[in-house]
Amino acid sequence: MSLLVTGSIGIDTVETPFGKRPDVIGGSAIYFSYASSFFTPVRLVGVVGEDCPKSLLDVFQGREVDTTGLEIRKGSKTFRWHGSYLKDMNEAETVEVDLNVLAERAPKVPEKFFDSRYVFLANTHPALQQQMACSLKSAKLIVADTMNLWIQTQRDELCKLLPMIHGLVLNDGEARLLTEKKNLIEAARDVLKMGPKFVVIKKGEHGCLMCSARDTFVLPAFPADKVVDPTGAGDSFAGGMMGYLATQGGSISPATIKRALAFGTVVASFTISDFSLGGMQSTTREQIDERWLEFKNAMSF
Amino acid sequence: MSLLVTGSIGIDTVETPFGKRPDVIGGSAIYFSYASSFFTPVRLVGVVGEDCPKSLLDVFQGREVDTTGLEIRKGSKTFRWHGSYLKDMNEAETVEVDLNVLAERAPKVPEKFFDSRYVFLANTHPALQQQMACSLKSAKLIVADTMNLWIQTQRDELCKLLPMIHGLVLNDGEARLLTEKKNLIEAARDVLKMGPKFVVIKKGEHGCLMCSARDTFVLPAFPADKVVDPTGAGDSFAGGMMGYLATQGGSISPATIKRALAFGTVVASFTISDFSLGGMQSTTREQIDERWLEFKNAMSF
Repeated sequence: MSLLVTGSIGIDTVETPFGKRPDVIGGSAIYFSYASSFFTPVRLVGVVGEDCPKSLLDVFQGREVDTTGLEIRKGSKTFRWHGSYLKDMNEAETVEVDLNVLAERAPKVPEKFFDSRYVFLANTHPALQQQMACSLKSAKLIVADTMNLWIQTQRDELCKLLPMIHGLVLNDGEARLLTEKKNLIEAARDVLKMGPKFVVIKKGEHGCLMCSARDTFVLPAFPADKVVDPTGAGDSFAGGMMGYLATQGGSISPATIKRALAFGTVVASFTISDFSLGGMQSTTREQIDERWLEFKNAMSF
Repeated sequence: MSLLVTGSIGIDTVETPFGKRPDVIGGSAIYFSYASSFFTPVRLVGVVGEDCPKSLLDVFQGREVDTTGLEIRKGSKTFRWHGSYLKDMNEAETVEVDLNVLAERAPKVPEKFFDSRYVFLANTHPALQQQMACSLKSAKLIVADTMNLWIQTQRDELCKLLPMIHGLVLNDGEARLLTEKKNLIEAARDVLKMGPKFVVIKKGEHGCLMCSARDTFVLPAFPADKVVDPTGAGDSFAGGMMGYLATQGGSISPATIKRALAFGTVVASFTISDFSLGGMQSTTREQIDERWLEFKNAMSF
């Protein structure tokens, strides 16, 4: 089923204990699209500046990613992020960030995308996320991500968004910031009171937690002995999760959500094994399914 | 099958956001014994001073804990610990500690305990742990715990202990300190090179990790929305794990170890729900089995 994602597209410079990669493709929508396209056709909505090398956007060649909604804006510059994991592999230190085109008006959703049933609103200003949520009237599942910046500076807009979406994905620090609860189960329940039907809290190397009115479900991360670059792990997780959900149709059972979280976990484990999209680029759907089965068996006792 | 534990017995004063409890029973051997006695008869070896109120030691009344090896030493004072979780529920801040009798000679293992097949050497000086490991010649499974203090000050003695035991249980910070590896899978593999056949890394609210030459297995913690007092969670975890293993006999398969880790996880989830032994005292084996099954089902997808 059609899965639409809108979010950032950027040129990243990343430093980890395994080296430095200047000017590689990055951004939430890029990681999400690549991850979810292992499962289902993806519609990408995003914007870059005219400085963006065409070769960087070639990453989706041969994949089922419809880039009709990718705007190359004249006179604008592409979002750039320079991050370092030298001090802590679990949290990037932002060395430099230039919002550039991300600080301008949002990209337009092409009319032919209006019938999208599954929608992921990757991290951006919650007022823009509201606009998207409103305009995509055929959506049966809208999931959003957010970040510290919006929780701190745009709480009202974020609180208006939450009843408009079905699911919220955020990390542990963000969940604690949003709810002022230290215990993550308590935090998740408080998020539910704000509107969404389910919330997924990403805990990085410690896995994830899903909470709905009926269920609470925890899953560890896939054990990884070599984390080369954690950039995009959260967006790849969301991509794997939503990509799988989009193939399931009908109503979403707790078992389906668990399987989807496990697919997200597995796809993220490929992402962190190399820089930028390298980990996913050297992976196939068959390898994902194989690791998923290995993970499923490991979790069964 | 007979399970012997030797470790600390103390009088604790604990402060958490849920209140303060002065002079309650505590210590690694106490939590371990209580936890494992849900599964199998336990033999406790430990020492207190003559100041220890008899009522504190009544906790094992009606339970299958053989306290023949519990020495009440004349002229000595009981180990005391005052800890606070007011700043961080994941790590106790030691307000005050008096080793007292723990700084003296070790308690004697009664001769009738010499045939113990399962042995848990709770956290104490690694030279004492070596003595115990040597003297218990009938043991088919010896598992030890350790702590920062010994890793930092008694590394040589600890390294002599490791080839003498089958399993080591320690927390994430200790594993990183012992191996100087940040990645926990790498750390676990380095521990294996030091001698034990398997290592269990406890990650508190993030669950645990087990590593052997053949297997790597991760398990989240049981989702808890109310943590009243985390004291003894790690020892209760080890008690649940060893208690279950002691009932299994024969060779220990990977599946048996997984089930044992899950029992440890579940017993610890009862411990943290109240102060001191309160959480376990208001629990039955039936409730543990019920929660274990709930956990098992939640982990299956």
